[in-house]
Amino acid sequence: MNTTTTATRDVITSDRVEGTSVYNPSGDKLGSIDYLVIDKRSGQVRHAVLEFGGFLGMGSDRYPIPWSMLRYDTDFDGYVVPLERDKLERAPKHSVDARPDYDEDYGREVYGYYGVNW
Amino acid sequence: MNTTTTATRDVITSDRVEGTSVYNPSGDKLGSIDYLVIDKRSGQVRHAVLEFGGFLGMGSDRYPIPWSMLRYDTDFDGYVVPLERDKLERAPKHSVDARPDYDEDYGREVYGYYGVNW
Repeated sequence: MNTTTTATRDVITSDRVEGTSVYNPSGDKLGSIDYLVIDKRSGQVRHAVLEFGGFLGMGSDRYPIPWSMLRYDTDFDGYVVPLERDKLERAPKHSVDARPDYDEDYGREVYGYYGVNW
Repeated sequence: MNTTTTATRDVITSDRVEGTSVYNPSGDKLGSIDYLVIDKRSGQVRHAVLEFGGFLGMGSDRYPIPWSMLRYDTDFDGYVVPLERDKLERAPKHSVDARPDYDEDYGREVYGYYGVNW
């Protein structure tokens, strides 16, 4: 994040999202956002993909979540997401070196896991 | 772009889009994609923002275009967009050091300039 990034009320830029910290509602830093998954045709962001940097021993796995789960919190200067340990332990994930295809079936699995409408 | 990026038929990841080359239909390399502008609430990508790296003397300005104008071309290993010099010379742009707010008025101006429905 740097001084040239844009964050108005309505929009955000991809380079500002990437690398931004992610916290749970208790204020524990979970990790940060690695990248976004975008539907090519519609331009809709399907997932933010989180990396936890060793938090809770989860190593370098990546956890896709629905975009709509991200809530920016100015107090934390980061995103707060309603994710607790027991929920994360069984969540869809992949190794940093082996990204899935992110096809529709996988997308629906992720949304379903977090109870978000596809 | 590296071997861990994802590009299936349906989706693409933000880190793969950023830095990808952009060509005009004649095959001239215009520049590359710097970043994306995303509607926070809906998760819709409004703009891809192009940098031209001195092409046509356009220096380091940034040119937002509608996401839907991007067409990936495997022959070029990059995006082909229907942009010719005379169209670009009058296009909405900003200095690399002074990003606009990307509010709705600005978005509509960009879409209108390129004749794309908002």
